Amino acid sequence: MDYYWDDLNVGFIDQFGPISVDREEVLAFAERYDPQPFHLSDEAAALTHFGKLAASGWHTCSMMMGAMVRHWQATPGWQEGSLGAMGIDELRWRKPVFPEDTLHGKSELIEKIASRSRPEMGIVKFRTSLTNQHGEEVLSLVSTAMRKRRPQA
Amino acid sequence: MDYYWDDLNVGFIDQFGPISVDREEVLAFAERYDPQPFHLSDEAAALTHFGKLAASGWHTCSMMMGAMVRHWQATPGWQEGSLGAMGIDELRWRKPVFPEDTLHGKSELIEKIASRSRPEMGIVKFRTSLTNQHGEEVLSLVSTAMRKRRPQA
Repeated sequence: MDYYWDDLNVGFIDQFGPISVDREEVLAFAERYDPQPFHLSDEAAALTHFGKLAASGWHTCSMMMGAMVRHWQATPGWQEGSLGAMGIDELRWRKPVFPEDTLHGKSELIEKIASRSRPEMGIVKFRTSLTNQHGEEVLSLVSTAMRKRRPQA
Repeated sequence: MDYYWDDLNVGFIDQFGPISVDREEVLAFAERYDPQPFHLSDEAAALTHFGKLAASGWHTCSMMMGAMVRHWQATPGWQEGSLGAMGIDELRWRKPVFPEDTLHGKSELIEKIASRSRPEMGIVKFRTSLTNQHGEEVLSLVSTAMRKRRPQA
């Protein structure tokens, strides 16, 4: 299957994961990139609304990206249509993510925009979310990316 | 100095960093969280608009967070006023980030909103950006966070 801009329609849904959240990795990420006490120990987290050790929100984003990229790479044609990411909107950390959680990812195409200035590409917006083993949405965001148009015969 | 919601005004500017981008760390982050070829080798990146090995955009966000948290922790009173982050909007990867780059961070308070339902807290929005050694803005985003109100006497 091809995944040019022309081949994707609003409502297209893609799924990725599962992501297993590892305690040692939560700690290692936090030590390097987000050394707030509630990302480093259960004791400190117990004093906050997290209640117990919670992953950095940026770690959750990074785990999402890792699972998504591996899914793309296992989907023939997907990467060939990509022209890169432009940015993210409406990123929301809706619930804490805890060690031993299992997260499932879903992306839905919510908007397509043709480019007037660059007819060889188009823009797609996806709403991507992660849901934990309790069915709770823990993260959501809207990404904007560029994709190749189908070459004209 | 105190950093309650009441103490911060629109136009307040905070600076953090510098961040030194390390090649081995760029590779390690990409292997785990964003294994796209242009984040893993100069050769693959040379075939893209990056031109040479570029950091994952999520790695850039994570490096930003690390430098910001360390700055907060070195600023007496800052963390005591925090009630956590709600989310991110308008995240834009404006230019590639390369190994050996040096990034400087800046956050500007752009909006304050009192909470009607929770008079003990208020909302602040910051525009945060990273600029490289050439003066180019490489990353920008708008964060929304909650801060404590100053206790009434």
